[in-house]
Amino acid sequence: MRSYVSEFVGTALLLAIVAGSGFMGESLGAGNAAVALLGNSIATGAGLYALIVLLGPISGAHFNPVVTLMFWKLGHIKAPKMLGYWVCQFTGAIAGIWLTHLMFSLPIIQESTKVRTGLGIWVSELISTLVLLSVIHIGDKEAKDKVPMLVALTVTAGYWFTSSTFFSNPAVAVARSFTNTFVGIAPSSVFGFVIAEVVAALLVLGILALVEPKDSKSYTRGL
Amino acid sequence: MRSYVSEFVGTALLLAIVAGSGFMGESLGAGNAAVALLGNSIATGAGLYALIVLLGPISGAHFNPVVTLMFWKLGHIKAPKMLGYWVCQFTGAIAGIWLTHLMFSLPIIQESTKVRTGLGIWVSELISTLVLLSVIHIGDKEAKDKVPMLVALTVTAGYWFTSSTFFSNPAVAVARSFTNTFVGIAPSSVFGFVIAEVVAALLVLGILALVEPKDSKSYTRGL
Amino acid sequence: MRSYVSEFVGTALLLAIVAGSGFMGESLGAGNAAVALLGNSIATGAGLYALIVLLGPISGAHFNPVVTLMFWKLGHIKAPKMLGYWVCQFTGAIAGIWLTHLMFSLPIIQESTKVRTGLGIWVSELISTLVLLSVIHIGDKEAKDKVPMLVALTVTAGYWFTSSTFFSNPAVAVARSFTNTFVGIAPSSVFGFVIAEVVAALLVLGILALVEPKDSKSYTRGL
Amino acid sequence: MRSYVSEFVGTALLLAIVAGSGFMGESLGAGNAAVALLGNSIATGAGLYALIVLLGPISGAHFNPVVTLMFWKLGHIKAPKMLGYWVCQFTGAIAGIWLTHLMFSLPIIQESTKVRTGLGIWVSELISTLVLLSVIHIGDKEAKDKVPMLVALTVTAGYWFTSSTFFSNPAVAVARSFTNTFVGIAPSSVFGFVIAEVVAALLVLGILALVEPKDSKSYTRGL
Repeated sequence: MRSYVSEFVGTALLLAIVAGSGFMGESLGAGNAAVALLGNSIATGAGLYALIVLLGPISGAHFNPVVTLMFWKLGHIKAPKMLGYWVCQFTGAIAGIWLTHLMFSLPIIQESTKVRTGLGIWVSELISTLVLLSVIHIGDKEAKDKVPMLVALTVTAGYWFTSSTFFSNPAVAVARSFTNTFVGIAPSSVFGFVIAEVVAALLVLGILALVEPKDSKSYTRGL
Repeated sequence: MRSYVSEFVGTALLLAIVAGSGFMGESLGAGNAAVALLGNSIATGAGLYALIVLLGPISGAHFNPVVTLMFWKLGHIKAPKMLGYWVCQFTGAIAGIWLTHLMFSLPIIQESTKVRTGLGIWVSELISTLVLLSVIHIGDKEAKDKVPMLVALTVTAGYWFTSSTFFSNPAVAVARSFTNTFVGIAPSSVFGFVIAEVVAALLVLGILALVEPKDSKSYTRGL
Repeated sequence: MRSYVSEFVGTALLLAIVAGSGFMGESLGAGNAAVALLGNSIATGAGLYALIVLLGPISGAHFNPVVTLMFWKLGHIKAPKMLGYWVCQFTGAIAGIWLTHLMFSLPIIQESTKVRTGLGIWVSELISTLVLLSVIHIGDKEAKDKVPMLVALTVTAGYWFTSSTFFSNPAVAVARSFTNTFVGIAPSSVFGFVIAEVVAALLVLGILALVEPKDSKSYTRGL
Repeated sequence: MRSYVSEFVGTALLLAIVAGSGFMGESLGAGNAAVALLGNSIATGAGLYALIVLLGPISGAHFNPVVTLMFWKLGHIKAPKMLGYWVCQFTGAIAGIWLTHLMFSLPIIQESTKVRTGLGIWVSELISTLVLLSVIHIGDKEAKDKVPMLVALTVTAGYWFTSSTFFSNPAVAVARSFTNTFVGIAPSSVFGFVIAEVVAALLVLGILALVEPKDSKSYTRGL
């Protein structure tokens, strides 16, 4: 039970940080979107570090359906719990967007008009998700105590070096269609993002099945 | 005695960092308030880290009346000492504002005219304080050695993702009414902030009473 | 085999981060190149930290021919493997540039027109490479667990305090001639950079031969 | 001997980072001095971290005459060595400025015309030096392994919250009079800075004599 609350609250706060810092940067940035992205990326990295350190011991701090999928494949979490996590992550993400609108006195219900589409962006989102899952998987094995910092700094860098700005998270992609602010994505563009993210996740699952066929069962089964 | 000096000096320096970096950013930022907020939030996070690492072993590095209230509830500090801390925090915070005015050759005595009010901002301040107290409480239990970095990065992120810019501290709210610079808050708006902060603190106290009814007495009683 | 993949992928991602964040900063920065450099330098530092932590245990995370050369001199890696690393680093670096162009929907094949030449820049690049190799060598001996953070922060600072913006890497210099974006370097300017980097590397090799004539063989021969 | 080289090279690189990043920020910043200060303060903090981690084991990584004075008072270093350190720090600092001019193809010999004077600035510089010495002294006793990060983040914050931008170092004050770029200080203003720094150092020495009369001799005598 505590782990579900942790995933819901953590994903909600993650989205509040992403959307809130983007809105703040855009509002104050006097038309310089790079300054907005600086605030957005630094705040997201800083907030993610805190969320992962604090909620990691409770739920694993996935906040991301494809991360949960990978941990299911690795035997860290069972299928029914995975489904529960997914529900918490999607609903939490949307709740975080609505909380942001409430805090900034914006209309609660919005729909983004920012089209993000095209081959470049889909490749970018595929690469982003491959990078994120690799960082989490290799980090978990090689440098477990550094995973919060690794994920935080990867996302901070990711905002800058990918054309899709490194969503790499289907819950994030869906929730960001609910806001017409700096970080929004038009509902029509969400499908492309989610496809790219899921393809990346399946690629990782396939590679894991090849590379670590037996290993995968020997992990500590937490959660 | 050393712990009172530590709370006074630490809160004073915290406010000097908050107000000084805000003034610097506003003065140099050529009208781009997002750039000012970058300097303000990075400097505050950096300074907080140093203050908490260095003064934590001496006084606990609360610098915040509602943090002290939570630690009293958890049995870390007794009621008379709590009152002493409060005096040090409020007077230290105001002293820090005055020190900033002195350093920047501004009139020492000022009153902010920046109105910060409305439901969104009050919700924001409530959430901010809930987040700060949760970070400190969970961090203290799960990752004690990381608390300085956790609090620093939470505040850096908080400046960006909340419409109230994450005061979450009644001493800070009161003291910031004494400066008419970037970080000021009109005296008429202070009450709403303090109410939101205290409500959040009482919520945390209530939750702690429910969740950890006996645990709370078994803590190491420091200070 | 895994170590070659690691050097290829790591160098490719490093260049994607360098070029992608530079392009993003320039595109959004409204003509303020210092804002672009902030995004560029923060993203590069953040990404480098993750790459070195994660790929260090696999290949040493050199991503740089002159770093590999130094480790060969120190007896960490044999000559044939060094040649293999070099191939992976140069091809990986160019692949990273092309990946960036793909992600940002730019023409894949480009050639930079940004001339970077002159005594000041060559001295800057010589100093940069001396600093990078010293940081890695001394860090390896004195503070091995901090090397990822040391290298990341050195490069972040290096972007700012050197006129050449701290390439300090022949694979980076060559690959950056393949992009006509923020981080590009005209092919005619590459030679000067590579000469400066190689001279710095030979200086370090000479100093090591003098200072640690026997020591150099006693290192753990990894990889 | 190695320790003298370390103090010379470390102070030279510190000044190259301070002056070079300031010049870069000013050149690229399109008139927004807050953006320049962001680059300047982030680069200085990042570079200082690396310098202190790497050169700390060799010379203590003082790079600052008043830091050396405090360590002499604490019995860490003897008087003749202190004088040697001072020579290395002042000459290294000036060499670092000249290296910066060389790297950026500027006239090597310059004199700043930027007047920095007045009560506010002197108070600011006094506070800065008190803070820096306190951070180093308390950090050394309470959290020795965190001193590099503590000093780095204190200086990053210091650039922002003090009107004097936290020189807190007589060698830095003198050397910065040798450059007419972003970080310069007119020779006529240097005296006020040095006086404020020395007064702060003497205050710290006096407090140490009162608070730790015997303790001071029981320190590990390094170096």
